[in-house]
Amino acid sequence: MMLDAPSRAGSHRHLLDVDAMGRAEIERILDLATEMRVRRAARTHRSMLEAETVGLAFYEGSTRTRVSFELAARALGATVVNLDLAGSSVSKGESLVDTLRTLERTGVTTLVLRHHASGAPYLAARTTGMAIVNAGDGMHAHPTQALLDALTLREALGPLDGRTIAIVGDVAHSRVARSNVHTLARLGARVRLGGPAAWVRGFDGLPGVTIAGTLREAIGGADAVMALRVQLKRTGNPAQSLRKYTSRWRLGEASMQLAAAGAPILHPGPTNEGVELTAELANGPRSLIGRQVENGVPVRMAVLALTAGAA
Amino acid sequence: MMLDAPSRAGSHRHLLDVDAMGRAEIERILDLATEMRVRRAARTHRSMLEAETVGLAFYEGSTRTRVSFELAARALGATVVNLDLAGSSVSKGESLVDTLRTLERTGVTTLVLRHHASGAPYLAARTTGMAIVNAGDGMHAHPTQALLDALTLREALGPLDGRTIAIVGDVAHSRVARSNVHTLARLGARVRLGGPAAWVRGFDGLPGVTIAGTLREAIGGADAVMALRVQLKRTGNPAQSLRKYTSRWRLGEASMQLAAAGAPILHPGPTNEGVELTAELANGPRSLIGRQVENGVPVRMAVLALTAGAA
Amino acid sequence: MMLDAPSRAGSHRHLLDVDAMGRAEIERILDLATEMRVRRAARTHRSMLEAETVGLAFYEGSTRTRVSFELAARALGATVVNLDLAGSSVSKGESLVDTLRTLERTGVTTLVLRHHASGAPYLAARTTGMAIVNAGDGMHAHPTQALLDALTLREALGPLDGRTIAIVGDVAHSRVARSNVHTLARLGARVRLGGPAAWVRGFDGLPGVTIAGTLREAIGGADAVMALRVQLKRTGNPAQSLRKYTSRWRLGEASMQLAAAGAPILHPGPTNEGVELTAELANGPRSLIGRQVENGVPVRMAVLALTAGAA
Repeated sequence: MMLDAPSRAGSHRHLLDVDAMGRAEIERILDLATEMRVRRAARTHRSMLEAETVGLAFYEGSTRTRVSFELAARALGATVVNLDLAGSSVSKGESLVDTLRTLERTGVTTLVLRHHASGAPYLAARTTGMAIVNAGDGMHAHPTQALLDALTLREALGPLDGRTIAIVGDVAHSRVARSNVHTLARLGARVRLGGPAAWVRGFDGLPGVTIAGTLREAIGGADAVMALRVQLKRTGNPAQSLRKYTSRWRLGEASMQLAAAGAPILHPGPTNEGVELTAELANGPRSLIGRQVENGVPVRMAVLALTAGAA
Repeated sequence: MMLDAPSRAGSHRHLLDVDAMGRAEIERILDLATEMRVRRAARTHRSMLEAETVGLAFYEGSTRTRVSFELAARALGATVVNLDLAGSSVSKGESLVDTLRTLERTGVTTLVLRHHASGAPYLAARTTGMAIVNAGDGMHAHPTQALLDALTLREALGPLDGRTIAIVGDVAHSRVARSNVHTLARLGARVRLGGPAAWVRGFDGLPGVTIAGTLREAIGGADAVMALRVQLKRTGNPAQSLRKYTSRWRLGEASMQLAAAGAPILHPGPTNEGVELTAELANGPRSLIGRQVENGVPVRMAVLALTAGAA
Repeated sequence: MMLDAPSRAGSHRHLLDVDAMGRAEIERILDLATEMRVRRAARTHRSMLEAETVGLAFYEGSTRTRVSFELAARALGATVVNLDLAGSSVSKGESLVDTLRTLERTGVTTLVLRHHASGAPYLAARTTGMAIVNAGDGMHAHPTQALLDALTLREALGPLDGRTIAIVGDVAHSRVARSNVHTLARLGARVRLGGPAAWVRGFDGLPGVTIAGTLREAIGGADAVMALRVQLKRTGNPAQSLRKYTSRWRLGEASMQLAAAGAPILHPGPTNEGVELTAELANGPRSLIGRQVENGVPVRMAVLALTAGAA
């Protein structure tokens, strides 16, 4: 949700979730991201955010997402501070709100926040005047991942209206899936969710979304397939349930024959090869996994520029 | 204490403690900090320290202090390196002196040092040619905190001559309190220390300083009140002694009525709301806690500029 | 080994090892490092690498080496990202190759890699298109350390042809020693390796290298002596075997009388004073230990410029 800051900072906006964003707003970000990729390559706009200080507050570690945001902010000339939250005042029992208010007072203008608690970015937006960018909150949302996935799909397929995108795996516990479902539906795509029953709960009745009980049903004729990361910890008796999962839901070149001709495969990474999909598929010509990572930087450049009010 | 480096680097000075600094020297820093705030906002002087490399060596974690120093150094154009001392050569058993000499040899010109051992910055100043800025050493001193507190008080009250400042809490174990007592006394203020007997030991007989046995005595008529952080670990039987502490010494709007009309409340943060002071007081109109954090950056800009010989 | 990237990036080269580098190539790096020292002092060439993004991937912590590379990259204007690999996606079980490919996709162009697995930089060079600089891999190689040691020796002794360099300590388990033996031999020096039998195994028969069974034999008439760090964990019964080691192999001013007049002492650091050498020797006039650290930055500037194809 891009919205005007509720409190102090008049010109700042936030990126908290995608579920309240309209199609025009999503497309504006994707268009700007496309533009940002060119600017980055040409190294123009290196001073677009030179008045901004971007704080990277990752309460959950993530090299790929943090580096992507860091390079995006630097490419636009922002001052970037890593907050190294392990081993910090957090260990003194300082509350999230106190930490965020302190960062704001020291001069941080945009906060990129990853937090294990669903809703933490909303708290941040309500209690500080910084622009807040959600880099993943609990099992709730991961909006920049959904935006880079949408950009990757749009590049591969053109406009997504009427296209069928299958999402396979642990949808129920995935913030990536949740944000993708909303973004794809908003862009006019039909979304099919496939996985064990306990992993696709809670999505029935969403407009444009159908639940599939088998892999065949999920990806048959799909224009693109997105595999989710299986959280190995969450599978109970790991060896047994993992075997059961992979026997029914693992994606490979053979099962991809059920999808539309040339349908690409996506995965938010890091992959567990052999679990969610075969190594052959992950590294083969259908794979857009590398492109997803590449698109992370321009999408985040666009988001940082927009939330800072600079674009 | 600002002094000429004893060894190699002729033009560098240190900030090790405030207790040997004269009034003129303290006021020069506060005046320069006021100027630095303007420069930071206008983003001038972004090349003042461009020849300097500032190393941030935090052997004790502290997001707020480290970020404050980092943004101060960057605002003046310095190259900044974070030394990530957890998990570094420290774990190979390398001595502090060896680490510091290595940093100097790689080109670090100013070292901001936080260390659990009282006196570590003095060792650093004696054994290397870097400018050393003490960012907190054991229970000894935290000079930049005292300077930003003094700036905050001066902004609120004007000149501090003859003003009464109450400091309440665990004074004996607090490097913040120790540095504040000296700075405030030097600026002409009268200082009253209040807290349980074991927590105010060792300050009797200092000129301008009185010990108070009750909260009423400590803050009665005071022009400003500073609460210190209670180290929850240090209170022995935590629940019981904490209850005892808060019943006698917790600050709230009611007790603040004993102070001078409109007297502000300060706290070095992070606060334990409900322990040292009520949430109402911490977040109310008397609170300068946010302003203290804000003043951290310009005070550290001034200190870095002065120790580098650039101002 | 400097070689053309086997895969994608046409203009990038790597520094993986020194053992396949020719004399001309080594000397070119040392000459460029000498030039880089001047440039750094004059702060010219601050935009030489402004199109490069240097990722520092230290799977083993090392303040001194990481800071040295970071300041080298910054001195040439590169964008630098620290990858903070403890607590990152590594903990999700992501493979090294996946992490490196992700970094490449986000825009990292040069990767400085320290890894506990011997050969990890070769894997990185084979599977990505980034320029790879080996900052120490397992017990295999530490090429930039060998290059800075060679530069330090060349400054002190002039050309190394026909000079005798003694290396004393745990040669067999030391990547520093392994890289030094090759570099020094390539530059025409004679190398004598001294230490307990189990610590000098595997080097007999290398051209220009002799094994010495006693300290006297190792350093007698040597033009320079390099002590290696004793890994205290590796000595079995630590107290006893350490006592045995120091009684036979510890270097001091007295034993250095056996070497050529004025022969300098080197050590890659951090030293265990009293174990590998006496504090008197480490801090005395023969010691080039500080100069080794100083030479680290210009050597790494040269290596980063060469691998990026900018020099």
